Amino acid sequence: MRIELINTGAELLVGRVLNTHQQWLCRQLADLGREVSRQVCVPDDALQIRDALRESLARSELVIITGGLGPTSDDLTRDVVAQVLRRKLVRHPATLSRIRHFFAARHRPMPAGVQVQAMIPEGAMVLVNCNGTAPGLALQTIAGKQCLILLPGPPRELRPLFLKSVVPLLRRKFPLTSPFLCHTFKTTGLGESIVEEKIAPALQPLVRNGLQLAYCARVGEVDVRLAAHGEKAASLLAQGIRRVRRLLGPVIFGTGDDSLESVLIRLLIARQKTLAVAESCTGGFLAHRLTNVPGSSAVFLGGVVAYSNQVKQDLLGVSAETLRRHGAVSEPVARAMAEGARRLLRADCALAVTGLAGPGGGTPDKPAGTAFIALSQNKGTAVLLQHSPVDRETFKFAVSQRALDLLRQALPPPLPRPGVKSKKNSKKSLLLA
Amino acid sequence: MRIELINTGAELLVGRVLNTHQQWLCRQLADLGREVSRQVCVPDDALQIRDALRESLARSELVIITGGLGPTSDDLTRDVVAQVLRRKLVRHPATLSRIRHFFAARHRPMPAGVQVQAMIPEGAMVLVNCNGTAPGLALQTIAGKQCLILLPGPPRELRPLFLKSVVPLLRRKFPLTSPFLCHTFKTTGLGESIVEEKIAPALQPLVRNGLQLAYCARVGEVDVRLAAHGEKAASLLAQGIRRVRRLLGPVIFGTGDDSLESVLIRLLIARQKTLAVAESCTGGFLAHRLTNVPGSSAVFLGGVVAYSNQVKQDLLGVSAETLRRHGAVSEPVARAMAEGARRLLRADCALAVTGLAGPGGGTPDKPAGTAFIALSQNKGTAVLLQHSPVDRETFKFAVSQRALDLLRQALPPPLPRPGVKSKKNSKKSLLLA
Repeated sequence: MRIELINTGAELLVGRVLNTHQQWLCRQLADLGREVSRQVCVPDDALQIRDALRESLARSELVIITGGLGPTSDDLTRDVVAQVLRRKLVRHPATLSRIRHFFAARHRPMPAGVQVQAMIPEGAMVLVNCNGTAPGLALQTIAGKQCLILLPGPPRELRPLFLKSVVPLLRRKFPLTSPFLCHTFKTTGLGESIVEEKIAPALQPLVRNGLQLAYCARVGEVDVRLAAHGEKAASLLAQGIRRVRRLLGPVIFGTGDDSLESVLIRLLIARQKTLAVAESCTGGFLAHRLTNVPGSSAVFLGGVVAYSNQVKQDLLGVSAETLRRHGAVSEPVARAMAEGARRLLRADCALAVTGLAGPGGGTPDKPAGTAFIALSQNKGTAVLLQHSPVDRETFKFAVSQRALDLLRQALPPPLPRPGVKSKKNSKKSLLLA
Repeated sequence: MRIELINTGAELLVGRVLNTHQQWLCRQLADLGREVSRQVCVPDDALQIRDALRESLARSELVIITGGLGPTSDDLTRDVVAQVLRRKLVRHPATLSRIRHFFAARHRPMPAGVQVQAMIPEGAMVLVNCNGTAPGLALQTIAGKQCLILLPGPPRELRPLFLKSVVPLLRRKFPLTSPFLCHTFKTTGLGESIVEEKIAPALQPLVRNGLQLAYCARVGEVDVRLAAHGEKAASLLAQGIRRVRRLLGPVIFGTGDDSLESVLIRLLIARQKTLAVAESCTGGFLAHRLTNVPGSSAVFLGGVVAYSNQVKQDLLGVSAETLRRHGAVSEPVARAMAEGARRLLRADCALAVTGLAGPGGGTPDKPAGTAFIALSQNKGTAVLLQHSPVDRETFKFAVSQRALDLLRQALPPPLPRPGVKSKKNSKKSLLLA
């Protein structure tokens, strides 16, 4: 089954807006066992939308088109689709009353123009949009063998609508001919090639039997995705999962869409431990990541962004002598910051980071990209050294990732798994302790 | 002149990676007066790359293709291009010695496979890649009337290479037939439709004469882009710029790629004022944005992430009584936090935010999305109320944006401009003072 995705919007082609639909929709479809063969982006121009749509329909069983369903003059998708499929636009009363209700509920007058969103190509199925006025639409063509789906452009409308209406429709309309299963491991701490070296040989026999194995590396993270089609899918996947778990052990921090911060907050809640942070080079980013997790306030107390040395002294109690002798980017300062934050915020554990993002300020001893990361607990303080000579924002991410992982690996895991040696944890997190 | 962009990469079509090339390249081209007509994404599959390339070449004068130039078996672009254009692949000695040098300089052995990156389609011009081993390539076809440009996939290789080699090549090869000028204003504080209401009528006569006017709204920001082609471009643009400046005044915080935080840091450096922050609901994000600006350490001292009420009391000196009587999300608490942070960090000014991101925890009085933002200076403390009922991360951005802007508008502007009434500043930032 061939799938194509068409994104419409002039703002995408002049680069004013980042196209996040492509990644999100492709990811959703991949997890359903479907792969998009081509993605196309065209501006709000009737001829260009028409050409792209005709080409995609000529090649594919499923075409998804985003944007251009609103009420303004540059919303052309509805008209173009009607024209290409030679359908009349007809009023859809239930949608019209939904739109009226949308404005009434917000005590806002309904502009006349918005009614056009209730006009749909004859025979289209309406996919209800709970977060906006333009409905999604599904159309069948070529005697029901082909499906065209129209989705509204704003992500907060498109995403729930896709999950609620499009996923069930696809499952019904294009059932997989054989079972499909997939599983994604999220890992941190090893580079892509090392992860591959560790698992690829043991997975080779399963891959020969049809297990799909893919890696995706981002800063500080490597995803390992296993997928399998067919009668043997469940058995292949289960064997693959077991082997990857055994071989990667604590390098795996989660699955699916887990983030390291969300896993850590869950662990802290389960262990009933509170956390504080002291940040120099990450400048608040570590706290930001932790507070992005809903429910983090149960365990995350807060922290100190100690960007200047004076703040490191005044608030965190780092001594002037330590700063003078070792410099702000040093093992003793990281240690003192973590211990200071733990004391100051009365937390069970505290993470501290001090480093040099660069590009300026490096020395042969401590080049730009150097960071010290400390974890203070009641049983003592561990410090590790990291070197990430990258741009400023990537550096912040890499350092915060390592800090979060230092704490994750220091906490007892939620469930002991066979083959995971706990020694690895302590070795890693006590590198410079 | 028609331009198409082809992005290759299986990871893009299974949604493991976000395609940032599209926005970046489209933006660069738009600022050169060029618009991309279509962007296409295909996986690392020789047939699919070939089809997409043939189609784009049949329609366009300029085709840019990204990715697939590396040394591994899924890097197919080089071969497909040679096949489609019927050129032999030949060794490029200067590139080969560059690749050797790249590994030697890093004291790493050179894998044999990487040499394939020195094979180029006959007649191609090599665009030197200073940040990686795969060179960019430029090919002329159809008797020099058409240009195909190949760029390496990693952004930190592609971007400098594009700016250094492709921009001059495009200017030389496809000179604009008439002058092109553009100017982007960055604004904050007003919605897109209000910005439009304020400026569109006055710009109408210029638009009729050929001035292009476009808006781009993101959370907490609206860009206003003016552009003009032709002999009258300079005069049209100058008039447009003057009118927009006069009508929007302090709503404009910068131009081009300015961020609000970078503008604020520049202002603080110019005014020699130091800044501290106290954050509850933004959880470190405000400090993160400020410390993303290189050079921010000259004026940004740091701050307190006071996520728990205990930290608000212990570190910032908010009284238990104030917290009990007014609640953590209140005007008096925001005020006490800002004043506490200014005192604690001995800063010239301090920003504080306390709010309720939701989705849970709201009351009829203080629904989710409510935030109080305070600015403390030696002349007093101002507090404003903001309501942004959005998801957690958008809420953090919107609140931090308003906080940064509160301080920006409270600082004297770098150069007084005719028509900007300073009263507007004080009125806005002292809303609840």
